[in-house]
Amino acid sequence: MVKVGIIGASGYTGAELIRILSAHPKAEITLITSRQYVGKPLWECYPALSPLNLVFSDHSDDSAFDGADFFFTALPHEASAEVVARILAKGKKVVDLSADFRFNDPEEYKAAYGPHPHPDLCRKAVYGLAEIYADQIRGAILVANPGCYPTSSILPLYPLIKAGLIEAEGIIIDSKSGVSGAGRGATQTTHYCEANESLKAYKVASHRHAPEIESHLSKAKGASVKVAFTPHLIPMTRGMLSTIYAVPKAGVKRADMEKAWREFYKGRPFVEVAPGEVIPDTAFVRGTNRCMMAVRDYPAAGRVVIMSVIDNLAKGASTQAVQNFNLMMGFDETTGLAGQALTP
Amino acid sequence: MVKVGIIGASGYTGAELIRILSAHPKAEITLITSRQYVGKPLWECYPALSPLNLVFSDHSDDSAFDGADFFFTALPHEASAEVVARILAKGKKVVDLSADFRFNDPEEYKAAYGPHPHPDLCRKAVYGLAEIYADQIRGAILVANPGCYPTSSILPLYPLIKAGLIEAEGIIIDSKSGVSGAGRGATQTTHYCEANESLKAYKVASHRHAPEIESHLSKAKGASVKVAFTPHLIPMTRGMLSTIYAVPKAGVKRADMEKAWREFYKGRPFVEVAPGEVIPDTAFVRGTNRCMMAVRDYPAAGRVVIMSVIDNLAKGASTQAVQNFNLMMGFDETTGLAGQALTP
Amino acid sequence: MVKVGIIGASGYTGAELIRILSAHPKAEITLITSRQYVGKPLWECYPALSPLNLVFSDHSDDSAFDGADFFFTALPHEASAEVVARILAKGKKVVDLSADFRFNDPEEYKAAYGPHPHPDLCRKAVYGLAEIYADQIRGAILVANPGCYPTSSILPLYPLIKAGLIEAEGIIIDSKSGVSGAGRGATQTTHYCEANESLKAYKVASHRHAPEIESHLSKAKGASVKVAFTPHLIPMTRGMLSTIYAVPKAGVKRADMEKAWREFYKGRPFVEVAPGEVIPDTAFVRGTNRCMMAVRDYPAAGRVVIMSVIDNLAKGASTQAVQNFNLMMGFDETTGLAGQALTP
Amino acid sequence: MVKVGIIGASGYTGAELIRILSAHPKAEITLITSRQYVGKPLWECYPALSPLNLVFSDHSDDSAFDGADFFFTALPHEASAEVVARILAKGKKVVDLSADFRFNDPEEYKAAYGPHPHPDLCRKAVYGLAEIYADQIRGAILVANPGCYPTSSILPLYPLIKAGLIEAEGIIIDSKSGVSGAGRGATQTTHYCEANESLKAYKVASHRHAPEIESHLSKAKGASVKVAFTPHLIPMTRGMLSTIYAVPKAGVKRADMEKAWREFYKGRPFVEVAPGEVIPDTAFVRGTNRCMMAVRDYPAAGRVVIMSVIDNLAKGASTQAVQNFNLMMGFDETTGLAGQALTP
Repeated sequence: MVKVGIIGASGYTGAELIRILSAHPKAEITLITSRQYVGKPLWECYPALSPLNLVFSDHSDDSAFDGADFFFTALPHEASAEVVARILAKGKKVVDLSADFRFNDPEEYKAAYGPHPHPDLCRKAVYGLAEIYADQIRGAILVANPGCYPTSSILPLYPLIKAGLIEAEGIIIDSKSGVSGAGRGATQTTHYCEANESLKAYKVASHRHAPEIESHLSKAKGASVKVAFTPHLIPMTRGMLSTIYAVPKAGVKRADMEKAWREFYKGRPFVEVAPGEVIPDTAFVRGTNRCMMAVRDYPAAGRVVIMSVIDNLAKGASTQAVQNFNLMMGFDETTGLAGQALTP
Repeated sequence: MVKVGIIGASGYTGAELIRILSAHPKAEITLITSRQYVGKPLWECYPALSPLNLVFSDHSDDSAFDGADFFFTALPHEASAEVVARILAKGKKVVDLSADFRFNDPEEYKAAYGPHPHPDLCRKAVYGLAEIYADQIRGAILVANPGCYPTSSILPLYPLIKAGLIEAEGIIIDSKSGVSGAGRGATQTTHYCEANESLKAYKVASHRHAPEIESHLSKAKGASVKVAFTPHLIPMTRGMLSTIYAVPKAGVKRADMEKAWREFYKGRPFVEVAPGEVIPDTAFVRGTNRCMMAVRDYPAAGRVVIMSVIDNLAKGASTQAVQNFNLMMGFDETTGLAGQALTP
Repeated sequence: MVKVGIIGASGYTGAELIRILSAHPKAEITLITSRQYVGKPLWECYPALSPLNLVFSDHSDDSAFDGADFFFTALPHEASAEVVARILAKGKKVVDLSADFRFNDPEEYKAAYGPHPHPDLCRKAVYGLAEIYADQIRGAILVANPGCYPTSSILPLYPLIKAGLIEAEGIIIDSKSGVSGAGRGATQTTHYCEANESLKAYKVASHRHAPEIESHLSKAKGASVKVAFTPHLIPMTRGMLSTIYAVPKAGVKRADMEKAWREFYKGRPFVEVAPGEVIPDTAFVRGTNRCMMAVRDYPAAGRVVIMSVIDNLAKGASTQAVQNFNLMMGFDETTGLAGQALTP
Repeated sequence: MVKVGIIGASGYTGAELIRILSAHPKAEITLITSRQYVGKPLWECYPALSPLNLVFSDHSDDSAFDGADFFFTALPHEASAEVVARILAKGKKVVDLSADFRFNDPEEYKAAYGPHPHPDLCRKAVYGLAEIYADQIRGAILVANPGCYPTSSILPLYPLIKAGLIEAEGIIIDSKSGVSGAGRGATQTTHYCEANESLKAYKVASHRHAPEIESHLSKAKGASVKVAFTPHLIPMTRGMLSTIYAVPKAGVKRADMEKAWREFYKGRPFVEVAPGEVIPDTAFVRGTNRCMMAVRDYPAAGRVVIMSVIDNLAKGASTQAVQNFNLMMGFDETTGLAGQALTP
């Protein structure tokens, strides 16, 4: 059993990590921290998790990190980098769920988030999209867990760009997310009466997940790729759908793209091309580490329409983090992640 | 007071017509019909409308149409055309909420819906998008009420194409609708537990509102326009958002587009450019005849992002039908339609 | 046109007052205040209300009250009493939506809320449940708008107790409210992801609406009445249902109780006994000033089950306040309040 | 590995059984049947369960039952009894999720549901509320899985009545259920737009779960107990809350009742008294086999208020069925049921 610690465990990604790791056959949660709940039992923060006998502690002193051998950091960006540096200094491994290490180039980070607090560590981090970078993840000491929107976008697009089946120019990514993506903090936007029976875009033309997406599509292309990306807030708790419009290369059809996906993701347990004529629905992957994708030809419009669904808190955050943990520790990738979606 | 009849009043657009017309100062509902509820009081179908003392009758005999002077037909397509023909034969005016008369050219209709049951009547119909075709509507005896998706799409795009501010090629319309758009019939798709906490596209690359949209954008352009249109089902009852991606003409910016909208819709009471930095939210127009639109530059992607919200049952159906009624009867366009959105 | 001012207009009851009063044929909103939004246009607070050309002002100086002739105060309790005193000192009338004047006896208030800031004013206030106290309301200068739970509970129970049809002992009121009852403030409880797919009681055995209910049932009985009252939070924005269990007097049946309601509420436009076998649903009264009630015999349990639905923000707050305004100004009670429920 | 068959697997309780059993370490699903989906893969019915390689078969021929050694029947009542009889005739064990065997006395069944199709089998069945009847369940060949409302009501009430802490007369059970309790069939009631933003009671004074509740409370009391039971429909997918009002015996307080619960349920892994001042919320037990309960004194009303939450599809149906399977097979009761609630 690996002793794992969750730093910043009182948020939604923290709760989801606790849910998954508490049932993981090779992990034991020995440490959860939260500045707000120090000294309090887990159930005061999450009564739903009352069967687990855990108490929040503090992580302001480095000795806190002696309490575990592997760490998940789920802190706001910048705060995360500082803690990650301290954990790495102890010689321990980390999956960081913040945005802090998603760019190897501190300049790219700076463009999106401002000056990086630990630029020296950026290059040490491996981007934790296991379906694409599994080999690097296996040997990593620091894995940057991908953003939810990038996960839902890169997974379907990477193989198609790599295989030259679609044009890398003019890609439109229209993404929709449940409200849990905004975190547990109480805000006007996340008030039930504001989010319920409501639908809107946000951070139009300015969301910081766009450069993260572009960075990896550029790797697939071998040249700079730019996308138009728009996130939307949907009145539901969990789930993310990216509807993607792209120009197919001449003669390329749905069957070609599905074949490319099946080949690229052969043996990868968490990516699935939707069977038959099924249209991916976020409900199909609720609470799981799965990504379901589909594509339809739209010749009249000179486009293909790609759809990709994940659970933003699971494959978009915490279960993906556990998938990375599994790889980093040499476990089977599916350990602790095999459950089916809560239906309905 | 104009005596109005609602044919097919037991569906959601029927209920919304009843809500609006029962409070309309120049209309009196004298007839509501429904095959399913013949002889039953309105409250058996809609207990919410119990204060209204109305009883469903039948419309299988033409004498039924003597009971009113103006008609709203809210029947399934094909069924509607047949009834409309019978009402027109009585010399009475109709706003038809079905798809049956949305194409003046029976061949266009046929391509989307199959052979038209009354091709002779197609050319008599006026497309009831009052912000664009008010003059024709005023003189019409038969108005085809627009589809909800076309309303939300044509309103923002028409002036921009007409003014040559955006390219007419490569337009992507990613639309999202509340569940009421699927009608009141009980289906697997509209089951609460299937639609709640669920998000998906449907009728991808094949929805019949696409040619309706293209038909009017082509008029704006003076040449054939094709779009990529994808509808989505959102877990909420009412509301529709279209997120539209277009290529701006060289040098065109948000301010130019907003100016074009303000000029085109000058004096039009129901179209509004979102004030300040407000992002249109479907909740802002709930239960009203309003359309709120906004646009943002996205130079890095070579696009602009246009957002447009309506209430699919109101401006997307029943209040728009009443707006057409007002114009056809020579009333002020806002009569009975001035209420604010239910908030929250 | 009466010039009306809304003090504390940025909350949900303020927004609902604005929606109703902006369409009221005999009222003109000339003043809205909010400490948080002073100097800002209404749309910055409520974009949904952007068609209204209103700007928030301050009410810290008494001269603010010169801007209107009739006032609605929608402030937190205690804060409200202080402002009401200042308005009354100007010789103007007020409907107060806070809890501050719901008890004529300052001692009763104290037991529930603590020491009253203006005990001298308590006896001047009339309890604004128009279906019971219309005569007093007509002559009042200060009306205390009832709480939402008391409105939904007193309306069905008062006539039955008064007529001696049910025992006044052992009444159980199990009430359920939409989230808007918690106000617009951002809290953990009202976070979308906490309230959605969630159901729970709150303030069990301790909610301050219980004494308010008891106070008026005691008047009906002519002796002290105690009830068991439990509020619940329901994952929906608007609506309130009270399910009430009582012991019928010997031989009393549903028909007797329905008859008592019909007689007591004869000519009262906003109370309705559910027709036929209809079970009251909060959706039936959404956005209206209506209360729908029903009762069923439960002889096996020696009880009757009474159900009563209102919209907590409308009849439970803002439309009821306008009803009181109408009575205080000598207008027809239904002025501005005749619209049907938004359906669906 | 026990080969298990699920008869009537296309409904919601079927899907939940598949979710749980597919991850159960000692069970292998070898048979799923559905008249509607015969020959079709599971994913055509539930795309969410596409990782499972299962195909629906028929159960009209008895040879079908050779395909498994243990059965879960999830059919409508009456249909279930007939199938159960055929399975038992094969010498195999069954947990029946219908209402058909919840009464040992066919006359009691008849009073609620009509004549029993297999009265001879009624007395063979054991009521599958494992926290109370574990010993009988262990030796049973036919277990009748309890109804969801009875589960949520009997669990908190049984120990209190048995210990003589509350009066058995005058108990009021006000229950609230998510929409999934109504099943997967498409009906007007379960239409998203009818159930969303809606709240109402149903089957008032006439629900067939009342006699089931009374039957077991009578066993606790050793004398006939009658309750007043009212179910409500809540706009959420999963979850059930019963708010229960009872008269405490003289001097009995919250602490006494909590103590009685803790003693009665000592060593029972799925019943929990809410810690500290936590109020049970259905979200706390989502997707789990847990029941969380709490009680508050209400001396002013001469009552106590008991709250009890379960997931209607899990502890109220399918996970409880698996708990019974575990006991019948001699497995640890928690096998396959230890996961935490999906949060949020």
